[in-house]
Amino acid sequence: MSTLLIKNVLFNDALTDVLVEGPYIRQVGFGLECTADKIIDGAGKAIIPGFVNTHTHTAMTLFRGFADDMPLEEWLTLKIWPHEAHLTAEDVYWGSKLACLEMIKTGTTSFLDMYFHLEATAQAAEEMGLRAFLSSVCFDHFDPEIAEKTKQANLRLFTAEKPYNSRIQYTVGPHAVYTVSGDTLQWATRLAEEHDALLTIHLAETQTEVANAVQNFGFTPVRYLHKLGLLSPRLVIAHCLWVDEEEIKMLGDYGVRIAHNPASNMKLASGYRFPYKELQAAGATVTLATDGCSSSNNLDMVEAMKLASLLGKAWRFDPEAMPAPEMLRMATRNGAEALRLNAGEIAPGFLADFSLIDLKSSFFTPNFNTVSNLVYAANGSCVDTVVCDGKILMQDRKVPGEEEILENAARRAYELMKRK
Amino acid sequence: MSTLLIKNVLFNDALTDVLVEGPYIRQVGFGLECTADKIIDGAGKAIIPGFVNTHTHTAMTLFRGFADDMPLEEWLTLKIWPHEAHLTAEDVYWGSKLACLEMIKTGTTSFLDMYFHLEATAQAAEEMGLRAFLSSVCFDHFDPEIAEKTKQANLRLFTAEKPYNSRIQYTVGPHAVYTVSGDTLQWATRLAEEHDALLTIHLAETQTEVANAVQNFGFTPVRYLHKLGLLSPRLVIAHCLWVDEEEIKMLGDYGVRIAHNPASNMKLASGYRFPYKELQAAGATVTLATDGCSSSNNLDMVEAMKLASLLGKAWRFDPEAMPAPEMLRMATRNGAEALRLNAGEIAPGFLADFSLIDLKSSFFTPNFNTVSNLVYAANGSCVDTVVCDGKILMQDRKVPGEEEILENAARRAYELMKRK
Repeated sequence: MSTLLIKNVLFNDALTDVLVEGPYIRQVGFGLECTADKIIDGAGKAIIPGFVNTHTHTAMTLFRGFADDMPLEEWLTLKIWPHEAHLTAEDVYWGSKLACLEMIKTGTTSFLDMYFHLEATAQAAEEMGLRAFLSSVCFDHFDPEIAEKTKQANLRLFTAEKPYNSRIQYTVGPHAVYTVSGDTLQWATRLAEEHDALLTIHLAETQTEVANAVQNFGFTPVRYLHKLGLLSPRLVIAHCLWVDEEEIKMLGDYGVRIAHNPASNMKLASGYRFPYKELQAAGATVTLATDGCSSSNNLDMVEAMKLASLLGKAWRFDPEAMPAPEMLRMATRNGAEALRLNAGEIAPGFLADFSLIDLKSSFFTPNFNTVSNLVYAANGSCVDTVVCDGKILMQDRKVPGEEEILENAARRAYELMKRK
Repeated sequence: MSTLLIKNVLFNDALTDVLVEGPYIRQVGFGLECTADKIIDGAGKAIIPGFVNTHTHTAMTLFRGFADDMPLEEWLTLKIWPHEAHLTAEDVYWGSKLACLEMIKTGTTSFLDMYFHLEATAQAAEEMGLRAFLSSVCFDHFDPEIAEKTKQANLRLFTAEKPYNSRIQYTVGPHAVYTVSGDTLQWATRLAEEHDALLTIHLAETQTEVANAVQNFGFTPVRYLHKLGLLSPRLVIAHCLWVDEEEIKMLGDYGVRIAHNPASNMKLASGYRFPYKELQAAGATVTLATDGCSSSNNLDMVEAMKLASLLGKAWRFDPEAMPAPEMLRMATRNGAEALRLNAGEIAPGFLADFSLIDLKSSFFTPNFNTVSNLVYAANGSCVDTVVCDGKILMQDRKVPGEEEILENAARRAYELMKRK
């Protein structure tokens, strides 16, 4: 197995070496007496676990900046849906390549995706070297015919040959309670259980969604999922803004995973009182995410940590809320737990998914506290080197094929918006 | 006079050339038939006005990351004040050099500062080529002896020889209504009027400040300033979070300038309902700022635009609030107006204070809308070239002397925190 040695890198306020063997971290310590196939000088850099983005729609990079500052309904019906109807696998492939490029450039090593043509995203993530958890959008709009189609499409994914590395896994992604019938939600859950796959859904994102759920199903969204039997540690809920005390307790009791999307929640004005403290206290795993680039509008998890912390402090009028070390844990270890990865720590036995950040910039000067500077001063451009599954995806901020990806993704996006 | 020509740069969705003569933009148009002492190829770049940061404490870069996630009172009394007491002019010089470096790297060309040892900041800004409006912190803690001292110190500044370029101007900075007596506030206003200087103050930043003002002076902060005769277009108010309808009308009627500090307001949990729309409608000029690096923790105005917009949309539950083009105007033209600069526009006759942003990154791919991508997707690291007063301060992201500044500022910061 190939080996990689990072020498003299800053970790928890001290210099250390990190030895990687195959996909795993094998040794962590100062002055390791060993050699390796490849050695990286970590001087002037700090090592952090790779970020885990637990909710995105990767290929929506193609829609970046296409329609901002608009009301949700108008944005979806006039700008997004008419063009999504014309998306091809080739579009999704290049949109996903662009997303993977941006994730690597900003230190993300794993992501949980929900979108169309997901084999194209699988192909992109496979080539770019990232760890991807991919769910095709599953919805039926309460129409039995559409339900049958979406079930067949999802079944095919799980039964067909999967010509990818084990880094690429399929998950089940019923879109939301307002687009998927209770019957299909339960079917999706059984499918996930049978294949031991993750299950992910948008939930409790807006006040309207909650009001409609009560009116249509007689339950608030979390209670509705509880009744249908969806709550479990297998479930990753995106958003979870509009939940009451009892619902938070249910989420904790069932060990549900929550993906907090501060940028998207703010930009779409969905809500801002994310109950981080209460969810943590109840025992739910709170993770961090960016959402897709048409709503948030980038995949920079460093920025997501800052937004989560600043917003959390602001609405609670508490400067001690959501401190920097917890933000880093939410963006790394908690995300890894939610995706059932043995990752998110710089320690022997963990997957070699990590980044080196460049401390030679004003954002880390002075450097009294690396984590504080990372969360409050820096942005994703501080990431210098990215390793995933033991392989170097970026070194000195260079990702192979970057120019080609930018050109092809841009061309695809412009062509997509011309299609009628 | 030396000339500079930017060729084929993107501006308002079209390619153009920009000719600079001395400190001014002389011509803007496609295919200009002229030559220049220096030519910059603008291909793959967009031109935007330089950012104007209307409230900061530059040398507080030295405190970056020194004490985060703390309550305000504890932070000030245990962490900031004991060390500020030992600040030397040399510390402030290197802290200011670091701040200037960071401002240039992120596209800021002018700033309004309030801090100690301001000749050292003047020297730093002079050398770095930025436009600086500098006020020494003026306060008396309601003690006539201290009042006399602060008056003498401020008088000296305005009467002494000023060995700096006209880019460097002094202003008058009474700290706040809770640290400066009414008499000294009025004295400061007269000093500003006599020297036709700007006047700047922290105001209506926290609920506590408002409650105390009512208790101690019988007025809310804005009404108190009105009674003392401080309200005018000469006044730049930092924060202005806790104001009522009638106060907003007063600020508009008197043409007061407001510096919005979204990052600091969120991080210190001062408040989040900044009345942007109401202040604009009333006729006050709303500008954008970062505050100092110990509270916010960087000087990146691109990030400030994003935070202002996302926060403004979030608390109003309105995705159309604070749209991207208005954020750019707030960060450029409005700031220039507040500082009485003929800047903030890319047009003939305006000061040649501008940046080129690099569009060859994922954040500008695709590029349906440059301003939207700048505000919502990018961060300050997209700034490639900075021109201020017709002079190139950064090209290809390189600022002369960068390494020396990082080293010296870090050393100064570490030494400062050891001093007792």
